[in-house]
Amino acid sequence: MNDFQFYSPTEFVFGKDTEAQVGTLVKKHGGTKVLLHYGGQSAIRSGLLDRVKRSLSEKDIPFAELGGVKPNPRDTLVYEGIELCRRENVDFLLAVGGGSVIDSAKAIAMGVPYEGDFWDFYSGKSPAAALPVGTVLTIAAAGSEGSGDSVITKEDGGLKRGAGSDLIRPKFSVLDPALTCTLPPYQTACGATDIMAHVFERYFTNTTEVELTDRLCEAVLLTMVRETPRVITEPDNYQARANIMWAGTVAHTNIVGVGRDQDWNSHGIEHELSALYDCAHGAGLAVIMPAWMEFVYKHDPLRFAQAAVRVWGCQMDFENPEVTALEGIRRFRQFLHSIGMPVNFAELGAQEEDIPRLVEKHGVGTGKTGGFVALSAEDIAEIYRIAARASV
Amino acid sequence: MNDFQFYSPTEFVFGKDTEAQVGTLVKKHGGTKVLLHYGGQSAIRSGLLDRVKRSLSEKDIPFAELGGVKPNPRDTLVYEGIELCRRENVDFLLAVGGGSVIDSAKAIAMGVPYEGDFWDFYSGKSPAAALPVGTVLTIAAAGSEGSGDSVITKEDGGLKRGAGSDLIRPKFSVLDPALTCTLPPYQTACGATDIMAHVFERYFTNTTEVELTDRLCEAVLLTMVRETPRVITEPDNYQARANIMWAGTVAHTNIVGVGRDQDWNSHGIEHELSALYDCAHGAGLAVIMPAWMEFVYKHDPLRFAQAAVRVWGCQMDFENPEVTALEGIRRFRQFLHSIGMPVNFAELGAQEEDIPRLVEKHGVGTGKTGGFVALSAEDIAEIYRIAARASV
Repeated sequence: MNDFQFYSPTEFVFGKDTEAQVGTLVKKHGGTKVLLHYGGQSAIRSGLLDRVKRSLSEKDIPFAELGGVKPNPRDTLVYEGIELCRRENVDFLLAVGGGSVIDSAKAIAMGVPYEGDFWDFYSGKSPAAALPVGTVLTIAAAGSEGSGDSVITKEDGGLKRGAGSDLIRPKFSVLDPALTCTLPPYQTACGATDIMAHVFERYFTNTTEVELTDRLCEAVLLTMVRETPRVITEPDNYQARANIMWAGTVAHTNIVGVGRDQDWNSHGIEHELSALYDCAHGAGLAVIMPAWMEFVYKHDPLRFAQAAVRVWGCQMDFENPEVTALEGIRRFRQFLHSIGMPVNFAELGAQEEDIPRLVEKHGVGTGKTGGFVALSAEDIAEIYRIAARASV
Repeated sequence: MNDFQFYSPTEFVFGKDTEAQVGTLVKKHGGTKVLLHYGGQSAIRSGLLDRVKRSLSEKDIPFAELGGVKPNPRDTLVYEGIELCRRENVDFLLAVGGGSVIDSAKAIAMGVPYEGDFWDFYSGKSPAAALPVGTVLTIAAAGSEGSGDSVITKEDGGLKRGAGSDLIRPKFSVLDPALTCTLPPYQTACGATDIMAHVFERYFTNTTEVELTDRLCEAVLLTMVRETPRVITEPDNYQARANIMWAGTVAHTNIVGVGRDQDWNSHGIEHELSALYDCAHGAGLAVIMPAWMEFVYKHDPLRFAQAAVRVWGCQMDFENPEVTALEGIRRFRQFLHSIGMPVNFAELGAQEEDIPRLVEKHGVGTGKTGGFVALSAEDIAEIYRIAARASV
């Protein structure tokens, strides 16, 4: 186990109708003027936005509004939000939506007190300050409601990059599973895939003696394997939605990943797909992650066999652990297919001839990247090729 | 799953020599005058206290000192600490030790800003304020380094009672597994038992649809089953100590217990043993917890069978789930015996003829207590009797 620091000071308020507590929570965490940040029409149509506004008004908290966040949130709206917050003297960001809205709010939160271009934080610079952020989550997926991470896409050139700091961990997150019951099966499955990917990116590690975090990772994965098919067939199953929603948060606060090297190559390789085709991040991961696994599993077949046995319930082949390892990957892809996810480029809407362009944009150059297996540009091209041609 | 609030704002700093960061951490969390609170000679002899003092001095943080905390910490020292803090204008409590020292520091932290008797908070009253607390943990056991709980014993009458509030969750906790490598096997095993008990008290619940927290509970238990025997035979196995230390924290922040009814009867029933005989809390739990399980398992044999299969690796007897349930309890007691824990009154140093006195002090009266199975005074007497006569 490696040394680590773990700091997750977010107050999570979980359960039915918890959005009615937003006003109280903003006040408790020091907000006096709020920017209400959201996406498209669904938060308006469902009445959620009105309920949130009512809760703020009941506590006499004034607010400005900025809607229009799109999936794969853009820098252009972030600039707009920064301007708006400065003009209106906003001191608290309230994101109502999924990971895209929350990530956009985090970017604005870092940008407001910063004199330079907020994109600096998505190019490696650490922020020195940020406005506080609170969230009302509507999609179980990104885990941004409990993480110190944010991913933004630069509209000019389609660069998709991440920033990370404990400063942008939300002060509070309101998690009402009922809000996710209206989510269509495809988006639900995309979210579930993202949650599982967040765990797998932590699970495949070269760090030894990580029994506890291995087991915690498996706990989240086993939960997703049980609960996801239930919400695909019964979208308004509150209890299954509740387990998935909390699993999504637990998957990404880093409680399941502390003390171990991690490998975020699948996320990085996927980001080029969603940046180029504007596909859902989870759908891109469904195509990339098993392909990445097939490319790297020989690096540590027993670790992959462990996942196969403990998560997918495979019988261990003690004579041929690699057979078990591959069987686990096969079952993962089958699982993704069974919940309606694409498993190859054609199903995703991607083209194999774009691979050189995807690799170039990924920008590894002549170097290598990755914490489990370091990948060259040619390795990444091969993973895209495996993903392009995969089948169940 | 039930609605819940989860708020664990403690900054955990985990790894070798992390105690050298104490000065920086106190400063970061706003401390300007510290009470250094500790137990007996071991923190002095090992040089730990000197290292902590050096770290404070390097950051020009003045401190007062109060040592002498005993296992099952007493109210008398808490009163002394409150007086000392007021006299010296202390604004930050720094506990260096195990759960007893931390619990004592938490009690002082609540007592200083309170005009009444601090014991009110151990009699059901909620505190309105508390001084901030930081910890340097030396024993993996109580989980107090990440919890909002504290247990204190009233010297006059031997009453052992708990208090709980988010206000006394530590601001930071420094976790250096190397500090636990000198712990003798008996104390190590007591700590491991306490950790497992903290999980089991959450695991046995009547709340349904708790897949994620079930799995998280099992993750911690499986880790303890693997790692505890390793540190009994190799006390200075740093990696096994590290997994146990972090498991002890995870077991009690409540991340494994949110959204479910819990049952703390085993802890309550044990408290009378350690209050009367001044035995180690973990040793008392080793005697009580399997006895409690034997008394209540018929309330939900399948839940006990689930633990037997998933934690103890039992084969499920689908014709007779109760057989599997009992086999799991048997393996738990055998495990405790194998790590050197007592399994009955004689091994603990308790007397069966004291049972009426124990039951009376427990104070259920004519009522019932417990979240999984509500127990009457007679039920509790029967659990003491099972515990008195148990064997492996």
